[in-house]
Amino acid sequence: MSEYRYDLVHDHWVILAPNRNSRPDEFVEAGWKRAAGRCPFCAGHEQDTPPELARYTLAGRTDWQVRVVPNKYPAVVPSGTVVSVESWADESLPGYGWHEVIIESPQHVVSWSEMELEAVELVLAAYQDRLKNLRDQPQVAYAALFKNVGAAAGASIEHAHSQLLATTLLPPPWQIRLARWRKFYYDTNLTVVGQWLQQEQRQGCRLVAADTDWVAVCPFASRVPFEVRVAPRRPAAYFEQLDARLRRRLAALLQRICRRLEAVAPGVAYNVIVHTAPFDPPPHDYFHWYVELLPRLTRAAGFEWGTGCFINPVEPERAAALLKAAEPTSREIR
Amino acid sequence: MSEYRYDLVHDHWVILAPNRNSRPDEFVEAGWKRAAGRCPFCAGHEQDTPPELARYTLAGRTDWQVRVVPNKYPAVVPSGTVVSVESWADESLPGYGWHEVIIESPQHVVSWSEMELEAVELVLAAYQDRLKNLRDQPQVAYAALFKNVGAAAGASIEHAHSQLLATTLLPPPWQIRLARWRKFYYDTNLTVVGQWLQQEQRQGCRLVAADTDWVAVCPFASRVPFEVRVAPRRPAAYFEQLDARLRRRLAALLQRICRRLEAVAPGVAYNVIVHTAPFDPPPHDYFHWYVELLPRLTRAAGFEWGTGCFINPVEPERAAALLKAAEPTSREIR
Repeated sequence: MSEYRYDLVHDHWVILAPNRNSRPDEFVEAGWKRAAGRCPFCAGHEQDTPPELARYTLAGRTDWQVRVVPNKYPAVVPSGTVVSVESWADESLPGYGWHEVIIESPQHVVSWSEMELEAVELVLAAYQDRLKNLRDQPQVAYAALFKNVGAAAGASIEHAHSQLLATTLLPPPWQIRLARWRKFYYDTNLTVVGQWLQQEQRQGCRLVAADTDWVAVCPFASRVPFEVRVAPRRPAAYFEQLDARLRRRLAALLQRICRRLEAVAPGVAYNVIVHTAPFDPPPHDYFHWYVELLPRLTRAAGFEWGTGCFINPVEPERAAALLKAAEPTSREIR
Repeated sequence: MSEYRYDLVHDHWVILAPNRNSRPDEFVEAGWKRAAGRCPFCAGHEQDTPPELARYTLAGRTDWQVRVVPNKYPAVVPSGTVVSVESWADESLPGYGWHEVIIESPQHVVSWSEMELEAVELVLAAYQDRLKNLRDQPQVAYAALFKNVGAAAGASIEHAHSQLLATTLLPPPWQIRLARWRKFYYDTNLTVVGQWLQQEQRQGCRLVAADTDWVAVCPFASRVPFEVRVAPRRPAAYFEQLDARLRRRLAALLQRICRRLEAVAPGVAYNVIVHTAPFDPPPHDYFHWYVELLPRLTRAAGFEWGTGCFINPVEPERAAALLKAAEPTSREIR
């Protein structure tokens, strides 16, 4: 028997239908393609990208480890008319904004699972630095910070990279979501994410990892198989204010989750999305930042496109158990 | 320069970024796979499906042309506890509902482009019949009526078929959308879809086809390349009440759009979604039914999953011009 489940954080429901696991097609093709051509993100090819905005170096080294460049094919650009957010009611506006690419390694790696822990940590530090920079820019309403790994997750270049896309408009789904979160906070003095985390910790059966600082969980109403949300246990609005000690622990946690996911589903494509508070003036005490990891093992079809809701063939309880039981790969033992 | 565009119908915005058309990966792989194995939907294999719920025959023939069967791997089933819609506040409910498959042809065809017009029309008639049947069932809040063509659109079986998934819950995005549509109607005495249609007709540059009864248009804020919305010109809440004459013309229009789309992008995967009024008591005078055709030439990535908004590399004006100019295939000339 299947089940409807409601997600408090995103206000969606899913249909958990484990029997659909035995459908003819099963999961989509996985496997990272290692393209043969020249990679614009590899060390030595720096001239293939637009001029760099920032670079980050590992302690004790001199070469770059992480580079930030403008997207060569930007969705939005910080030139031309600056559009005020008040123009929202218009139906068309110039595509003003920032679209940056964070090149995560000089080596041609695909996933965080293949990187040194220090390198993953530096990627998170670069995220923080660029988010802080954007908070100083005019007319930023919202920043989407995301990572596409594998073609099935929308990656057009396989070399590990993330994107930061800052827009002058707040996406309508976030307008609606934030209004709901604010109301909940003023009614209960709790954040919606915090309330959801409490439920997950009380029930416990979907936790992938938890300690005094972090909770990683396959959400009660997971949209896709092996979806994982990671959040700090204590409410905090700004990912970019995470301190160095906690950032190191978060990097280790995210890397461990990637490795376990890849042990369960080798070559899996996935998206990582970092949700930090929007760019309107503080306070954002209703906001509790979190990271989503969305494996792309199934395909969104007409139902999902038409309803905004999801059919998930793998129960999150089972997903969490499989992830917890997954053997660490050889890279993890060191 | 890119552009933000707002969609009145769905309350989303898109970023039109035509320069991204030259990205390395371009469009996803297209091409319908013709699987070699036994097809459960082909004539002669009727015993491979659950017992049929309905069958439809072309005038003057005796064999079935369209069969409706319960989904063998249902997301929801009409047994067990009937859940009242008032239980909505609960976080988990049994998966009560209906999940039907409409097998569109006894022949192993993939797309409406490959079928006789009369056969496409009969598929639409079957849709109507099954929707009417569901309106008589208890506890149906919403019906998703959709069609997945090609693996990239989520099809697990290539043989042409549609799905009707009726749920006891109204998806939250539709709750929000319908509230907005109702308010707009009571404020203006216009439907939101009708208002959008008027704008599209006034501007004209995105029309793919239009006559006294129908408008087919690449929407101003298309989410994906070559997206097409088809709606009756006059407001009407219920797709299933469309009369036989107009149904025939709609079938011809949809088939023509599929053929032109396939001339532009051979082997394209696509979803078709029919949006009819929800199942709460009338009146639904604020609702104007429409059909969406969503080619799946690009992949939703972290930005789309994280924001609910879209980056579209093909301007709808260009998409409409290409669709209008597309040579009819040989099948169309008869």
